[in-house]
Formats: sequence, C-alpha cells, structure tokens
Amino acid sequence: MEFSNVSKVGREPHFLNGATRICAIVGDPIEQVGSPERFNQQYQKKGDNAVLIPLHVTPEDLAAVVKSLRAVRNFQGLVITVPHKQQALRLLDHCTPRAKRIGAVNAIRFTLGGLYGDNFDGEGFARGLAASGGRVRGKRVMIIGAGGAGHAIADAMAEHGAESIGVHDLDRHRADHLVANLRSGWPGFDAESVDNDPAGFDIIINASPAGGNVDQALPTDPARIDAGAHVADILLKPRITAFLKACEARGLGVMPGYLMLDNQIEAIAEFFDASSAEAAERYPHGKTY
Amino acid sequence: MEFSNVSKVGREPHFLNGATRICAIVGDPIEQVGSPERFNQQYQKKGDNAVLIPLHVTPEDLAAVVKSLRAVRNFQGLVITVPHKQQALRLLDHCTPRAKRIGAVNAIRFTLGGLYGDNFDGEGFARGLAASGGRVRGKRVMIIGAGGAGHAIADAMAEHGAESIGVHDLDRHRADHLVANLRSGWPGFDAESVDNDPAGFDIIINASPAGGNVDQALPTDPARIDAGAHVADILLKPRITAFLKACEARGLGVMPGYLMLDNQIEAIAEFFDASSAEAAERYPHGKTY
Repeated sequence: MEFSNVSKVGREPHFLNGATRICAIVGDPIEQVGSPERFNQQYQKKGDNAVLIPLHVTPEDLAAVVKSLRAVRNFQGLVITVPHKQQALRLLDHCTPRAKRIGAVNAIRFTLGGLYGDNFDGEGFARGLAASGGRVRGKRVMIIGAGGAGHAIADAMAEHGAESIGVHDLDRHRADHLVANLRSGWPGFDAESVDNDPAGFDIIINASPAGGNVDQALPTDPARIDAGAHVADILLKPRITAFLKACEARGLGVMPGYLMLDNQIEAIAEFFDASSAEAAERYPHGKTY
Repeated sequence: MEFSNVSKVGREPHFLNGATRICAIVGDPIEQVGSPERFNQQYQKKGDNAVLIPLHVTPEDLAAVVKSLRAVRNFQGLVITVPHKQQALRLLDHCTPRAKRIGAVNAIRFTLGGLYGDNFDGEGFARGLAASGGRVRGKRVMIIGAGGAGHAIADAMAEHGAESIGVHDLDRHRADHLVANLRSGWPGFDAESVDNDPAGFDIIINASPAGGNVDQALPTDPARIDAGAHVADILLKPRITAFLKACEARGLGVMPGYLMLDNQIEAIAEFFDASSAEAAERYPHGKTY
C-alpha cells in the first residue's frame, strides 16, 4: 500500500500520519507505564507531530532492539524504564556527566552522531520540588531509600546546591554505596549514611516504597520532622500518600510524586526535540530527523 | 520512570497507554502513506487498544529491523510498502500460497511460531470490486500495468473465478512476465499478453499510473470498452480519475481506487487480530500477545 495523506496533522483523535516522529518507552513489564498517555497529551497540546508508544522488551533483547531502532529514520527518542536503566547506559555513544555519575539513563535521543543518553529522574524531582515551594540551596537533605531513584535524586540535590545529604536505607550497605557514589561524583561533598531520624533535616525525601498506604509502616516518623521542613514523596499512588498526609497535618510543606513525573516528562520531551537552538547547543550532535 | 495508568483505554484523543498493541507500516519514503490514519481510525472506532505507526527504514536495514521487532513482545503486525514488498517475503517463517505466487507480501503478523506473511493487495481489490458492483466469476478481465499491483490483482482475479485475463503493459516483457507467473501459479489458466484494446473484455482494470489527470494519456480508450463492462482504477488521486470519469460518462460501472484501500485495511486488521476463531483457524500459529 502506498497512498497520500489527506487529513490534518496532530490535532485529531487519529492524530498519527506518515510524517509522525516516533518515540517509545521500553520496559519489562510495560503495561503499567503512564508515559504514553502523558507524552501524547503533551504532543497533542503543542501540535507536535510526534507519538510515544510502549515497547515490551526483555533484558536479553534490549541491546538488539535499541541497535535496530537506530536504523529507523523517523525514530526520535527512547524513554527507559525498569529494568533497563543501567544496561541502557552501556549501549550509548554519548551520555551526560550526570548519567555517568548515577550509572543509569532513562532517556536516549537518537542523533546523527549516535545515541545520546541522559537521566532526568533527579532533574524531574528537583523541578517538582521547586514547583511545590521547596528550596535546595544550602539545605540539609535526608533521602530515604537508596535504590535507583534515590541515586538520581541525591545527585540532583548535590547539583542544585544542597549543603549536605544524609542517606537512610533499611539495608545499610545500600545506603553506604549511594554515599560512596555521591562522594565520588561530587568530591568533598558532605554526604553520609544516617539512621532513620529526620530531626535536623530541612528536606526529607521518601524514595522508598514505604508509606504509600495507611496500613504500611511510614518511611520515617513525621512527629520527628523539624517544623518548617519540606517533605517529598516519589510514590504516585495514592496521589497524596499516607506519609505526606501525616506531614501535611503537621503543617509541613509537601511535594507529591506526580510533580516529579510531570516535570520529568517536560524535560524529556525537550531533550527529544532538538529543534530549539538551546537544545542544539546543549546536545550538539544533531538529530537524524 | 515507572508509574500507573489512570485514564481509560482506547477512546480518548491520547488513546495510547502501556497496554497498547503496536503495529507499524514500513517503507522508504514513509511520509506519504495514509495507513496510520486509516488503521487508527478503525482501531478507535472499534475500541481496540492498538495503534499503527510509520517506520522509515531503508532496504539495507529492513532485515535487521524486522528481526529485532520479533523481540518486541507487544508488537503485533507490520504493513509493508514500497520498496520492501519483495524483500520482506524472504524474511518470513511462513507465508500464504498467494503471497508465494505473487512473490511479495504487504502484511506480516508476528506470532509465537514466527513471522507469518500475506499479501492483501489483490484481496483488497477484489473486495472493492464487489462493493462497486463488479462480478469476477466467468468474466474476461483486462489488466493494464504489469507491476506489483498488477501481479497481485491478476492473482486475485484468477482466484475469484475469472474466465480469462489479458495483460497489457507498455513494456511487453513485463506483461509476458506477469502472464508466465500467472500460468505458473494457476496451471491451465487462460492468460495472455494483449495489446491496448479493451474491446471484448468484461472488466477493465487500470493498475498503471496512467490517466490520473486530464492532461495525462488515458490507460486505454474508453470509447472502445464494451457496453456493460465494469472499469476499475487503483489510483487514489484524484478520487475519481480522468479515466473513470470518461467511463462513467459512457454509462459504465466504475470502481475507484479508495475501495481497494479501504477493503485492504479491513482485511489486514483482521489478519493482525488473531482473536477470532476464524483467524486462529486460518493462521494456526497463534500470536505472541
């Protein structure tokens, strides 16, 4: 089949056409991801002729799939989710310093110069924190949960001028590993593993799965948080977690997880779209399409 | 990023989500294809959580891209357009007899048993012809243009019970090649190369690029067509070609090209969707998703 487009681009329910640029999110599993809806809402709002689709790929197939997507000339960008963020770093031609420090990427732009990776988990968090009224510069930050999200957030907090970071994890080795990684990326930075007491911190961040619902243990004791502190949770369900509710009840400022997500999607869409001069300057490798 | 879906499936302008099945059309170039809009309109109308996207892939990359799409577990089907229809046949694990006879595929279903190919160009034409009131059984058919479309249509006309087929092409060798191919696929079938006189034929099919506009030579002389004959054109622009207009003016029944396309899309969507028992019987290899 080969025939011509007749209808308009990018504004209709069936908004795809032959000239649409393709982006994707790759993960295993994939059914649960919300990126397709959120990205496509944004593309439609802006009138961009682009789409983001889900691709279900297992770890053993990731390298081959990413490699062959290079050959798809209207392919623009790939969002990386669990469990591929670390492996994807090894498939790149270029990556940002922060992606290298964190050891993981969650977005790859397909360019003429090859695959360019970055990690927007921390940046999305930092933008969301600012949007909720939290200020990082000069502040003492506590991060609960030393997994992939904790790593990315810790790096962003250091980059945005935090005075110090205390890392707590139920597994002390994980916390120590994050601290070592942070000190290696930011030599001289004041980071240490801490126990589960939020007293003395200005910003408390739950980057663990704890405290989503009332019947789960909270990540830390809200009663021990200093008055005037700002509290963030990266969990998306419920929209306001039991932990944040308890903090709100104490009159603390809070940041719900969807702010991290919304701000991250905006940042990744900018990254994929190299049409602006600013993006061209930041990511000098151009793009194929 | 990993987070949960909240909105409904398949009914909204931003209808994609993490559970969407992916189909694609692959071609070089790709901007001009109309399949994404038409397939997606149909998916939306039926409430199918599926999408069809354009993939721009050059001939040298086709094999690698098709191979790696096997690894994408929510990938369902691939529509093949110019210039890949012949090469794609060689990438399959299974194909239908008609695809083998024609020597080209225009749709591949991704199944647990591997890649299953078929060619719906002729079937789409035959369904469109029937929809326009044309009857094939026992009729003498003239096909003008012995390219890929001509091959597929000739095979479908033989399959649907035509009494004989005359093939005309400006290049006699191409016409002879189609005739030889047709006789090989349908031993004993009455097929021959003919000159450009439509007299004596019941169905006249323009499968060449001629006669789209008034300033182009018509594919054959409408005045020489028998009264009561049915005339088809596979060109899509304009919707009613200059050739068909001249035939209509003579009171002949006509079939415009979009009927071939509409009926083909319906047939391919059925082929991709193995959920029906009938499809499961026809294509016993199941599907991956």
